[in-house]
Amino acid sequence: MVRLQFSVELAYEVTAPGTDFVFNIEAARTHHQRVLAEHLSISQTLVPQAHVDPITHNRYLRLQAHPGALRVRYDATVDLAHHAVAPELVGEVWVANLPGAVLPYLYPSRYCESDRLQGFALQHFGGLWQGYGRVMAIRDWVAGHVAFRSNTSDSHTSAVDTLAGREGVCRDFAHLMIALCRAVNIPARFATGIDYGADPALGPTDFHAYVEAYLGNRWYIFDPSGTAIPMGFVRFATGRDAADAAFATIFGRVESHAPRIRIDAVPDDEGHLVLPRHRAEALSTDAGAH
Amino acid sequence: MVRLQFSVELAYEVTAPGTDFVFNIEAARTHHQRVLAEHLSISQTLVPQAHVDPITHNRYLRLQAHPGALRVRYDATVDLAHHAVAPELVGEVWVANLPGAVLPYLYPSRYCESDRLQGFALQHFGGLWQGYGRVMAIRDWVAGHVAFRSNTSDSHTSAVDTLAGREGVCRDFAHLMIALCRAVNIPARFATGIDYGADPALGPTDFHAYVEAYLGNRWYIFDPSGTAIPMGFVRFATGRDAADAAFATIFGRVESHAPRIRIDAVPDDEGHLVLPRHRAEALSTDAGAH
Amino acid sequence: MVRLQFSVELAYEVTAPGTDFVFNIEAARTHHQRVLAEHLSISQTLVPQAHVDPITHNRYLRLQAHPGALRVRYDATVDLAHHAVAPELVGEVWVANLPGAVLPYLYPSRYCESDRLQGFALQHFGGLWQGYGRVMAIRDWVAGHVAFRSNTSDSHTSAVDTLAGREGVCRDFAHLMIALCRAVNIPARFATGIDYGADPALGPTDFHAYVEAYLGNRWYIFDPSGTAIPMGFVRFATGRDAADAAFATIFGRVESHAPRIRIDAVPDDEGHLVLPRHRAEALSTDAGAH
Amino acid sequence: MVRLQFSVELAYEVTAPGTDFVFNIEAARTHHQRVLAEHLSISQTLVPQAHVDPITHNRYLRLQAHPGALRVRYDATVDLAHHAVAPELVGEVWVANLPGAVLPYLYPSRYCESDRLQGFALQHFGGLWQGYGRVMAIRDWVAGHVAFRSNTSDSHTSAVDTLAGREGVCRDFAHLMIALCRAVNIPARFATGIDYGADPALGPTDFHAYVEAYLGNRWYIFDPSGTAIPMGFVRFATGRDAADAAFATIFGRVESHAPRIRIDAVPDDEGHLVLPRHRAEALSTDAGAH
Repeated sequence: MVRLQFSVELAYEVTAPGTDFVFNIEAARTHHQRVLAEHLSISQTLVPQAHVDPITHNRYLRLQAHPGALRVRYDATVDLAHHAVAPELVGEVWVANLPGAVLPYLYPSRYCESDRLQGFALQHFGGLWQGYGRVMAIRDWVAGHVAFRSNTSDSHTSAVDTLAGREGVCRDFAHLMIALCRAVNIPARFATGIDYGADPALGPTDFHAYVEAYLGNRWYIFDPSGTAIPMGFVRFATGRDAADAAFATIFGRVESHAPRIRIDAVPDDEGHLVLPRHRAEALSTDAGAH
Repeated sequence: MVRLQFSVELAYEVTAPGTDFVFNIEAARTHHQRVLAEHLSISQTLVPQAHVDPITHNRYLRLQAHPGALRVRYDATVDLAHHAVAPELVGEVWVANLPGAVLPYLYPSRYCESDRLQGFALQHFGGLWQGYGRVMAIRDWVAGHVAFRSNTSDSHTSAVDTLAGREGVCRDFAHLMIALCRAVNIPARFATGIDYGADPALGPTDFHAYVEAYLGNRWYIFDPSGTAIPMGFVRFATGRDAADAAFATIFGRVESHAPRIRIDAVPDDEGHLVLPRHRAEALSTDAGAH
Repeated sequence: MVRLQFSVELAYEVTAPGTDFVFNIEAARTHHQRVLAEHLSISQTLVPQAHVDPITHNRYLRLQAHPGALRVRYDATVDLAHHAVAPELVGEVWVANLPGAVLPYLYPSRYCESDRLQGFALQHFGGLWQGYGRVMAIRDWVAGHVAFRSNTSDSHTSAVDTLAGREGVCRDFAHLMIALCRAVNIPARFATGIDYGADPALGPTDFHAYVEAYLGNRWYIFDPSGTAIPMGFVRFATGRDAADAAFATIFGRVESHAPRIRIDAVPDDEGHLVLPRHRAEALSTDAGAH
Repeated sequence: MVRLQFSVELAYEVTAPGTDFVFNIEAARTHHQRVLAEHLSISQTLVPQAHVDPITHNRYLRLQAHPGALRVRYDATVDLAHHAVAPELVGEVWVANLPGAVLPYLYPSRYCESDRLQGFALQHFGGLWQGYGRVMAIRDWVAGHVAFRSNTSDSHTSAVDTLAGREGVCRDFAHLMIALCRAVNIPARFATGIDYGADPALGPTDFHAYVEAYLGNRWYIFDPSGTAIPMGFVRFATGRDAADAAFATIFGRVESHAPRIRIDAVPDDEGHLVLPRHRAEALSTDAGAH
């Protein structure tokens, strides 16, 4: 078990009245990710709407901001007790046997046009032994063939763009890996958290985008950008791609400041400090189908 | 109330063993769409998996077919008792007040890149009076500016393609209308049914794609291609776009024959025959939020 | 006649040896654009290759730079004696009668996918009276429907993107106008010069991208972004789109500084100072077909 | 030397008056491709416009057809005496040393978005030994990774689409190879001819699209689809991509019949019959720079 303490601070200048925000910055509450304490503060006097999706456990925070400065800060302490299992025990699931709620993650989405790169995917990964290893092969291929470079992609960049251009940030790595998985009929989704353990040379602590693939009977974590330590990912939201699970979706034009994020491993109740580390097991924070 | 009797017959030649199919050809059961009788027959001996999505009421039918001929036939009798209301009473819903389950329909999807055509949408529809009339204006704009032409689009054609090319089939009309709605913050989704009342000059009775937009507190029906009579639409499935709600998603290569579809209005229990007709009211088969 | 004196100064940090540059920063020499004096200086000791295209009069300057700072400066004094004619006298040319060298400007190019937006173009401009007025209508439409906004587009942005997104810089305005012209069978090309007369509020003097359309028997100037004064455009290069006529094409990664550009109208030999102004006539610096 | 006799027959139903056609179906006359005899016949009474591009030797035939049937037939006998040289003697040319007229073939074009797939190209081919062998490696990669499948692409399909989808026809193979060459700074162009020697299982004799890359001081022939025998390619037209060098570009809607094409090797004046065969040498029909 790992205990993590973190804070997220967002700051905006709102110019138009009635600007709506949807935030996904609160830790999901799952069987394997327990929120011990949390605190949310908003600089304006307003009543946010909270909505928890019963299936994904995403916590949507909505508010309509007044013109002026808006500051949103979320602090939490979270225990992560991953479901960890030997990779060779984790198989793929035939389409016919997938839980119904998993089906949408087989289909192409805005940034993951699995229909367009199916030829590529079949060629590279169609013949591999099915199972966790195949997904890891896709993850490794993306990690090895895409270069991490800031400011080479934007909010319109899709998996096909990245397949051709071979550069991007964590979001682009995730989109490409997801599209490749779906193209060989493996359900995959986009997840957002914090880049725990990232090399400070890549910049200050930031949000992170990674991938969950459905294998065995649950969603397993993969980090195609390879820039952080999966065991330290606190899951905020999941979705088909970044369109669903952005940490902030803003309806209107605002000025945004860079988010300020801090995350640390802290001792548990018995005073043990466990640091997230790279692990060979397949990891999941998902409860699994029942 | 309208009573409709219809049948859908699909035929394939399956070449590879273990070819998975996901069908969306069964009438959704909603508060306003009651299934009186239905019958499903499958030419191969196999046990299909049925899954009903609790929120959309989509009925996914999955099966893994054997090589050889596969024939799937669905017959049903359905009563449609629409929620019908004067358009001027139907308003838009602020993002902050949308039900959580509706949020995903605000975001761009594979075929509805609302992020890319936001400039266009704001220019044309951003300043209109908010409400049902604005959605109808979008519907009318699409109906008036896109030409219905078979074989001008394919499974990769998206809303931006149609915005530029100005031609397509019902699916393309729907994608463009959906993308335009989302770009001005109106939730919209893709719906599939049968083209009741379509001009026989357009070809034999076929599946139909249309649009539902979230207004007031429910999903209302719009037909941007204008080729059929909305009051006669039996809803099969809804989704973000055609990727979610295809009548058949096939995992593997098969030979497909043209679907054979028949639909008729039939007398109700008292012997009254009500024919679907074009109506000025806003129509919905959705129960509304509670 | 207008006499213009200008300078262009480019500065780079070259990191890899053997980095090739192709510059298009020298004033084209045409019948109506006479170069009175010019001076080119390059901070490194190397022998540039000069190539003048016999048809477009583009002057390509190529050099292979050494690692370190590279500074290129071009100064010139140019007389512009436009061919100016009443717009109503300028007609379109049937495809069958176009000079052979003009044909390529009818076809789609990298950033001007006239094939993809033909439907839109025919709908808006297909029915207009053919002639200069139709091209002006296209120019006005682009000027009126696209917003000038810095940093909203990049080197991958194409005409279809701008048609949907409705924002960009002069290059994007030009690409969209060119694509629309070609889609209704009017040859159009991309031209680069300096934004003479631009509002200083848009930033310091910069390169400019505008459009030339083939009408009557020559290429006429249009400025779809409307940010500068066409009569003051010194033509550097023309091409199918920005891929051909960039002021600098660099083969390798370098660090670029912002170009420093200055342009002024100066008195002619008799001491008369003519300032470029907005004019109602159709303007061309092209000699016309013989 | 190879002597080839061939005929091309095109048939259309023209519905609108004043429909313009641009044909590229006549054999280019180059130093290495001599036209011994040719005959052109057109079923309508009209005067076609002929234009020969002085640099590419493309022969553009333009005509404005009357409504009704239009049949165009071209017969020719051509001698091909290739410039043939050992591949290891053919090097790449530095950008700084390329003839000016070759520069445009370095830049991205409509169907060959070399800017978008530069990352991929550099990764795969950036580190290879420069020369003919690198271009052959690109040709082999395309031949080995794209599947020839009719009806999987259309007139909008580009190199990036094919890179992702991995299927297409000869035109798509050519576009992808061209884009990859340009992305590593090797000039490449699209060429059209007849698929001499193609396997009859692929269908009747047809037009063919292949690639010419600029190496040493001339344009060399490559056949990325691998479906025919390069030594038997009679060159019709070359261009940046299919937009420039289509065998027929039609301005207006017409009904097209399938082209009927025949090609045979015939004995030369001394009665020797030389059959085109696959050869290991680098082949060119281009005169080379002077």
